[in-house]
Amino acid sequence: MTTLAQNWGPVPETWAHRHLLGLEELTAEEITLLLDQAERFYTVLMQGDRKIPLLSGKTCVNLFFENSTRTKISFSLAARRLGADVIDFAASTSSLGKGETIIDTAKNIEAMQIDAVIIRHSCPGTAKLLAENIRSNVFNAGDGAHEHPTQALLDILTIRQRFGRVAGLTVALVGDIAHSRTARSNIWGLKKLGANVILCGPSTLVSKNWKKLGVEVEFSLDKILDKVDVFNLLRIQFERQVVRPFPSTREYAHLYGMDSVRLAKAKSDVLIIAPGPINRGLEVTPDVADGPQSAILDQVSNGVAVRMAALWLGLGGTQV
Amino acid sequence: MTTLAQNWGPVPETWAHRHLLGLEELTAEEITLLLDQAERFYTVLMQGDRKIPLLSGKTCVNLFFENSTRTKISFSLAARRLGADVIDFAASTSSLGKGETIIDTAKNIEAMQIDAVIIRHSCPGTAKLLAENIRSNVFNAGDGAHEHPTQALLDILTIRQRFGRVAGLTVALVGDIAHSRTARSNIWGLKKLGANVILCGPSTLVSKNWKKLGVEVEFSLDKILDKVDVFNLLRIQFERQVVRPFPSTREYAHLYGMDSVRLAKAKSDVLIIAPGPINRGLEVTPDVADGPQSAILDQVSNGVAVRMAALWLGLGGTQV
Amino acid sequence: MTTLAQNWGPVPETWAHRHLLGLEELTAEEITLLLDQAERFYTVLMQGDRKIPLLSGKTCVNLFFENSTRTKISFSLAARRLGADVIDFAASTSSLGKGETIIDTAKNIEAMQIDAVIIRHSCPGTAKLLAENIRSNVFNAGDGAHEHPTQALLDILTIRQRFGRVAGLTVALVGDIAHSRTARSNIWGLKKLGANVILCGPSTLVSKNWKKLGVEVEFSLDKILDKVDVFNLLRIQFERQVVRPFPSTREYAHLYGMDSVRLAKAKSDVLIIAPGPINRGLEVTPDVADGPQSAILDQVSNGVAVRMAALWLGLGGTQV
Repeated sequence: MTTLAQNWGPVPETWAHRHLLGLEELTAEEITLLLDQAERFYTVLMQGDRKIPLLSGKTCVNLFFENSTRTKISFSLAARRLGADVIDFAASTSSLGKGETIIDTAKNIEAMQIDAVIIRHSCPGTAKLLAENIRSNVFNAGDGAHEHPTQALLDILTIRQRFGRVAGLTVALVGDIAHSRTARSNIWGLKKLGANVILCGPSTLVSKNWKKLGVEVEFSLDKILDKVDVFNLLRIQFERQVVRPFPSTREYAHLYGMDSVRLAKAKSDVLIIAPGPINRGLEVTPDVADGPQSAILDQVSNGVAVRMAALWLGLGGTQV
Repeated sequence: MTTLAQNWGPVPETWAHRHLLGLEELTAEEITLLLDQAERFYTVLMQGDRKIPLLSGKTCVNLFFENSTRTKISFSLAARRLGADVIDFAASTSSLGKGETIIDTAKNIEAMQIDAVIIRHSCPGTAKLLAENIRSNVFNAGDGAHEHPTQALLDILTIRQRFGRVAGLTVALVGDIAHSRTARSNIWGLKKLGANVILCGPSTLVSKNWKKLGVEVEFSLDKILDKVDVFNLLRIQFERQVVRPFPSTREYAHLYGMDSVRLAKAKSDVLIIAPGPINRGLEVTPDVADGPQSAILDQVSNGVAVRMAALWLGLGGTQV
Repeated sequence: MTTLAQNWGPVPETWAHRHLLGLEELTAEEITLLLDQAERFYTVLMQGDRKIPLLSGKTCVNLFFENSTRTKISFSLAARRLGADVIDFAASTSSLGKGETIIDTAKNIEAMQIDAVIIRHSCPGTAKLLAENIRSNVFNAGDGAHEHPTQALLDILTIRQRFGRVAGLTVALVGDIAHSRTARSNIWGLKKLGANVILCGPSTLVSKNWKKLGVEVEFSLDKILDKVDVFNLLRIQFERQVVRPFPSTREYAHLYGMDSVRLAKAKSDVLIIAPGPINRGLEVTPDVADGPQSAILDQVSNGVAVRMAALWLGLGGTQV
């Protein structure tokens, strides 16, 4: 594996970022570069020994202020497979309970000579706030309803793997757009790469104001079934909702759930993805989630690859 | 240590299992093979540098849905000493709170290209359920009151170390049989290796139905004191009991606690073991727990060795 | 880095301790030796690859029974950078809830062939209790209001780095002396190294009885402003206080908070340190905390270096 690491080559000079805060601030070329590098790491991941110690000696800190299974583990695995150390910061048992500000917490951790902070927080802009105040590289693992760039990158990588391209495809983001940072990051990434984006959901979860971002808004899933290449079925985020946005989950599943009846009316090569964790029977029925059109588990594999690429590009180069 | 790892040899061809779900499905030869390999790892453990990187590049995930100190740390140490990475899945802060099924959680973790899942769950059969639904190796760290195979293996290894054999010995499992997965695994393992097993406890915790498994059932500890080679003093699992199975802990200690008076009536080479954490003064008095007949701490050392053997046999070979 | 580790040299023969329980039991020479070694590790920390695998193959267990961010992460980073494995013991989900004593828990962990226990506990003397009952090296990460030796060592190292010496300096510990283990450890360390120590705070938090330890006690911060070289601004530990020791935080900040007005009356080369997490606007105003006299973040960097020194001296030598 040492040889693999030695022959890996340097971080491309066209990559000029230390942080990964969101896809809004990246160009199409930069997003493509990220996806290309992720594809290389994906190949390593599929091998038996999945280590490639390009970041040996570096230390990443997980600073998660919201519940997370897959994103945190995925980032941790990505860092370790690159040979970096990973330290978990347990937000619930932390000094924040002693009255410390989040910037002080981050500066203190940084003073221990760590290299990267992977941050998830319920407040939009937290990742940017940190990036402006500490010297370490900051990787946004989700900030409120703002952005979740690595989730969008893994969605887009999964699309590109299936279709060989992103440009020209029609991608529908279905469901809880209002509370979804994943939707925002996907819109930025997909539009920059030339895809058409349709937002689809009940009017309580999708506002027509979104059209300003250059996307279509459609309240009926049935109307768009036959013109969409990729359905990205967003999770209904019950934990973020104050007022119930629809009468019942049964009603939602009836109108917006992807099932075999709807799938039969879709394009024959349609791709079904979902950021997960999925609510089976709500956004998607089990037969569709586990069927051949679904790439839900491929997304998870791609997640580790995308995070390896993000960490390596940010930490492995010489950019300031 | 590299040389030690290089000279370790391959996983024996007679080992045909990817998972370790329970001792019920193993043959006497397979259990013996496990114990023999554990004995080899025990020798490494007793050295200053206890690493032997036979599973370098592999990743194990701790999927613990019940409280655990020693089993989780023991498995983690076993994995790390074999050079594997260990990722903790924090069940309480996980996606399960977002409505995900356990199989979906496991499949998602697995899609990150991990190799093994070490599972503890309050529901009997969870380990088997996982093994049938994911491709990773599954190691049962306790499923409800069903099995806890590595605990039984470390008990049996401790017995074998003391007596040089298991066959022909009389082993009494004392106490809370009803709620004990350790008891079930011990019964399977000990019977297969030719030991006589006596279950002993109050009738609220030991049913005569157990006789169907080929064991004796005895309600009086005093009656069997002089014919037993090994007393395995099971912990009273207050946290699993809905109805109190005996009038008071004092009453229990009086009738079933191992103390110096009872010990004096036992065989001179009697072995006292206990899966721990022990309730001092309840199942066993401090003088007996810390005395020369006790191997309670040896069990803990053997636990790491047994888990190294289980992980290596499952992950280090080519069996499908 | 291997070369760096190989050329590091052995643990000095004058270091005769396996444990680090407190500064009370160390001589001035031993404290100086610790600081000198920490200074060497500090140099390594400031490099890109901060690893120096002097404790490869060793395993440290974090046994934290109180909330902690920086101390736990700092010890973990110190251990990992020395090449040791670190296992976290989650006190809240542990066997202690099943009725096990702390000594049994520690002995059980130790039986897994670990090398060091890093202990934090709310009860004074816990570290010593462990050291007397287990064979592993014990490192005190804070025991009640008794001692917190590595915090005092990092404070003193920061002082020495700024002034080039400790002897002859006047150091004021300001604030919550009564609840502070950091104060106790600082007093022992500073006095042994020849500094003058002033305790300053409201009489509800500083008793005149402290004078028995050879320190001055002063209730007015303004009276001592111009004669102090180092202000160590202790955190008000609201979480430890049963009765409020002052009328309001505003009153406290007015009388004991370090702000730019007070700083202007202090010596021109005065050093401001604080163990953190700081309550901005209470013990110290933001402009002072972030100003040139402050070394608050240097302290955090020194913390990792001091813990690397403590772990290496304790674990890397041959002392019994």
